[in-house]
Amino acid sequence: MSQGRLGALQQTLADQQVQGFLIPRCDEYQNEYVPASDERLAWLTGFTGSAGLAAVAHNRTGLFVDGRYTLQAAQQIGSQPIEQGNLAPADIADWLCKALREGDTLGYDPRLHTEPGLAPLKKRLDECGIHLRALDANPVDVIWNNRPAAPCGPARPHPLTFTGEDSASKRQRIAAQLTEKKQDALWLANPEVCAWLFNIRGSDIPHLPVALSMGFLYRDGSAVLYFAESATSDALRQHLGREVDIVHDKAELFAAAERQHVQKVWIDPLLTNCWTMHELRNREMHILQERDPITLAKARKNAVELEGSRAAHIRDGAALCEFLAELPAAVAGGAHDSGFGELEAVNLLRGKRELREGFTDDSFDSISGYRGNGAIVHYRVSPQSSLPMRAEGIYLIDSGGQYPDGTTDVTRTVVLGEFPPQAREHFTRVLKGHIAIAALRFPQGTCGEQIDAFARKALWDIGLDYAHGTGHGVGSFLSVHEGPQRIGKASTNVALEAGMIVSNEPGFYLTGEYGIRIENLVFVKESQNYPGFLEFEELTMAPIERQLIDPALLSDGELDWLNRYHEKVRETLMPLVNEQTRDWLAMATAPLIRN
Amino acid sequence: MSQGRLGALQQTLADQQVQGFLIPRCDEYQNEYVPASDERLAWLTGFTGSAGLAAVAHNRTGLFVDGRYTLQAAQQIGSQPIEQGNLAPADIADWLCKALREGDTLGYDPRLHTEPGLAPLKKRLDECGIHLRALDANPVDVIWNNRPAAPCGPARPHPLTFTGEDSASKRQRIAAQLTEKKQDALWLANPEVCAWLFNIRGSDIPHLPVALSMGFLYRDGSAVLYFAESATSDALRQHLGREVDIVHDKAELFAAAERQHVQKVWIDPLLTNCWTMHELRNREMHILQERDPITLAKARKNAVELEGSRAAHIRDGAALCEFLAELPAAVAGGAHDSGFGELEAVNLLRGKRELREGFTDDSFDSISGYRGNGAIVHYRVSPQSSLPMRAEGIYLIDSGGQYPDGTTDVTRTVVLGEFPPQAREHFTRVLKGHIAIAALRFPQGTCGEQIDAFARKALWDIGLDYAHGTGHGVGSFLSVHEGPQRIGKASTNVALEAGMIVSNEPGFYLTGEYGIRIENLVFVKESQNYPGFLEFEELTMAPIERQLIDPALLSDGELDWLNRYHEKVRETLMPLVNEQTRDWLAMATAPLIRN
Repeated sequence: MSQGRLGALQQTLADQQVQGFLIPRCDEYQNEYVPASDERLAWLTGFTGSAGLAAVAHNRTGLFVDGRYTLQAAQQIGSQPIEQGNLAPADIADWLCKALREGDTLGYDPRLHTEPGLAPLKKRLDECGIHLRALDANPVDVIWNNRPAAPCGPARPHPLTFTGEDSASKRQRIAAQLTEKKQDALWLANPEVCAWLFNIRGSDIPHLPVALSMGFLYRDGSAVLYFAESATSDALRQHLGREVDIVHDKAELFAAAERQHVQKVWIDPLLTNCWTMHELRNREMHILQERDPITLAKARKNAVELEGSRAAHIRDGAALCEFLAELPAAVAGGAHDSGFGELEAVNLLRGKRELREGFTDDSFDSISGYRGNGAIVHYRVSPQSSLPMRAEGIYLIDSGGQYPDGTTDVTRTVVLGEFPPQAREHFTRVLKGHIAIAALRFPQGTCGEQIDAFARKALWDIGLDYAHGTGHGVGSFLSVHEGPQRIGKASTNVALEAGMIVSNEPGFYLTGEYGIRIENLVFVKESQNYPGFLEFEELTMAPIERQLIDPALLSDGELDWLNRYHEKVRETLMPLVNEQTRDWLAMATAPLIRN
Repeated sequence: MSQGRLGALQQTLADQQVQGFLIPRCDEYQNEYVPASDERLAWLTGFTGSAGLAAVAHNRTGLFVDGRYTLQAAQQIGSQPIEQGNLAPADIADWLCKALREGDTLGYDPRLHTEPGLAPLKKRLDECGIHLRALDANPVDVIWNNRPAAPCGPARPHPLTFTGEDSASKRQRIAAQLTEKKQDALWLANPEVCAWLFNIRGSDIPHLPVALSMGFLYRDGSAVLYFAESATSDALRQHLGREVDIVHDKAELFAAAERQHVQKVWIDPLLTNCWTMHELRNREMHILQERDPITLAKARKNAVELEGSRAAHIRDGAALCEFLAELPAAVAGGAHDSGFGELEAVNLLRGKRELREGFTDDSFDSISGYRGNGAIVHYRVSPQSSLPMRAEGIYLIDSGGQYPDGTTDVTRTVVLGEFPPQAREHFTRVLKGHIAIAALRFPQGTCGEQIDAFARKALWDIGLDYAHGTGHGVGSFLSVHEGPQRIGKASTNVALEAGMIVSNEPGFYLTGEYGIRIENLVFVKESQNYPGFLEFEELTMAPIERQLIDPALLSDGELDWLNRYHEKVRETLMPLVNEQTRDWLAMATAPLIRN
């Protein structure tokens, strides 16, 4: 089927007088998750991973994915005439320089790329004499029959009881930064930015509760916003007030800005697509390229947002506990009837969350990895991959929920029966790293990259490590992956600040055997006793698998942290879980002592 | 006196048709220490600190220094009509925009600035309509009567027994990188680079054993080098061989490169002065701006250099032990006769080092800080500041030596008698940080900024920190501050690699009371038991003050590290120290036990 699509696409390219075309896994807002109408890469190649790019030349097609998707891409390509490569600009450029000829033109959809994203590719293509050209119409869309409609669900006001600050106040704060930088307007590049600034949510993107929108904030705090017509209601108009104009055509945004005499525009180059840059330059607007000030404002949660996150995490923790408590019986039952596997586990957990107040969606595709599948860091269970579970071995579940008062993300690693003996040392060392971050006190101005190694040291001590970051920011009923703060090896130069929510998720993976990860969300708060210092406070509420802990490897301080955490979990969740779970919770949080 | 100099300089500026001029504390090689002939800033303003810049306008003069020199600069300026400011481009530019008028021209000596160094200043001056102009002759030199001659001591071959690799081999290695980058030549911007590449040393710069030189390395491994005529000998010519041309006029370097048909030149923008950039552009050479490949090659010590460093550190440690052993008696004696102070302590230590084989110079100006002076991180003792020492309180000595087989840098903090009781906890926590780095195992690819916080954690735990880096690279009979690796809060993105020497020097400073710092040099080596992991090995040999350690605050592992280190110090140094020191050494390295 796809071969027909590839052929049709190649024909369309000829019609548009380009010799090649790029198909990234991306939408015009650079969202992490994209709506079905933007799943061009999957439609064309069959590849459904969360990152990738296809390059189609007149007689060749390349699909470029990163290391975690190499196997999956090969399977999904199947027998199609698609070459597979590494998702790195240099590798893509090398392939293009061979697939195309000097003087050829490579088309791209300017809505699906940012300028910094294209720059390294462009540089190398220049050297080969290959030109890049922005196309008005995406050739995939031209041939995509029965393409799903773009989502256009309602944009709903998000109440002050959850946001803690009204939109007018937020807009004044950000507008003050525009004045300081002598800019006339800020480009609001994506729905997340708009959702925070205007206190609006929606349901257009999987796992991300936003309504598709973009716009301008002006220096006086007024704004113009794009929403689909069907997204707009009287309630929305009333919520936004007279200072916010709504348009239903994105191009109209720029005309509106022109009418407001906007000459200097602040854009975030990492968030803004090439089409927008083109529209701004066409109007001879002066462009300041700096990080969107909303990114940092959004990351610093206020007291109401933190209180909401606490409450959401308690409900979410109760759901997770009921799942963990019932899991052994479900697994045992599965052995007798139709089977219980990784996929059924996800459904069981989802069912528990759905019973909890306010739950709207998983905050991402759950990672449900039994035994060897747990060692695949970005594993996504499918009906084909789902392993049947039995009363033995180790199981890793990384999942989260979207609630109006908060977004959750938690990983627990549990045993279902007998397990490889060395797993206890690995788990305990991961736990030591987890506690090292959780219990850390650090001075203001400290960045995530400066504390990341605390999470790894106990593994480093025996020559082990894990190949992913230690923590990412998390939104308030927004994206589960939110910047700018991060805890990882790479430089961010972003200080961890009071109010920021971040995950703490060290792990260890033994290929083919098991995966271990212990993830809590925490938030940064000022130290009460040490001025100028910051500490973390736990949000996540769920027991940490006691059977996998070797108390002899824990210091007194670590053991004390664990027992105090478990006591808090028990006291908080006990009144909220079903009866079966209460016994389990008491056992799972019982004090651990060293023999 | 200086006022006359300022007036004369302002007159000269008028002659050169500029309205202002910049005088950085710098030479044309961007050396950390500069020869007397380049001490323009001190000559003009009286300020002798190691970093600073004067800006002279037609009727105003500004002196800009960083926080550590604020007091010293004010004292040294005295009653001269010089305004004092902060050594930050924005502050300097603000001052210049007030002192000069729109359309004015600010002169600078292109030999004393790099383009990246000037860029932030230039940007702000542009906004004020003030132009920058490179001057052919430095106006200070025009009026500086009796200016010391530029140093021009002999350039001496540095034997293979110390370098472990001959120059031809080094040049081939670097030339291979030129070929890879498709460059015709590498600009050798300073004497350190030349010293390493050609295995040459000299004595032109305080504390840095180099001969003033710069030049080009060509793609085929041949080279052209500038040396003063008096620096050049037959022995030098023979050592350099037929592949290396010597010129005695720097401008001749560029003509020589032109004759070699050099079109593409690799320069390091942070090392290369504006004059050189101008000469290259004048000849229409194509410039690649990237970090000098010699920087990294020089930092990775080979086995011979490491063996030399070990040997130098043993001799240096013996000298330091004799100093520490005799210090109490010297202090006691000073109370009876003419006095013994911080300055006399420096001289006592220097005398001990001078007795050791190969000692040529201190590797930097010793920091000798008694009581409150120890809390001044970059304290440099002078006859005016030198505190008399008594049999009480805490004393910090940070010093090092240059030996042909290695460069040393060591800090010890010792007690001379009664001391403030809280110092014991502070010292012990600094020691815990020191040990955390010393005993760390970490994966290849780890950068200094990723492990820096281990050195601080024990202080962070009680809300304390120190305001300097944890470690710097060190040369082999070269600069005591050598890049590119570093351990500190700031991002380097430079991995610590096997063979790199780095200091480990956490500290704590209680203003007005005492300074604490424990500094050893270590080198990075591959872990024997854990493939892909690196560890540190100690170079520095000297006891750590036992009286300041609270064993109750140390873990078993930390106590064990300390006792093993002391055992190694004792066994290594005992045969090498004088008799008086032997008893002291036995006591100073006796095992510490927890009560």
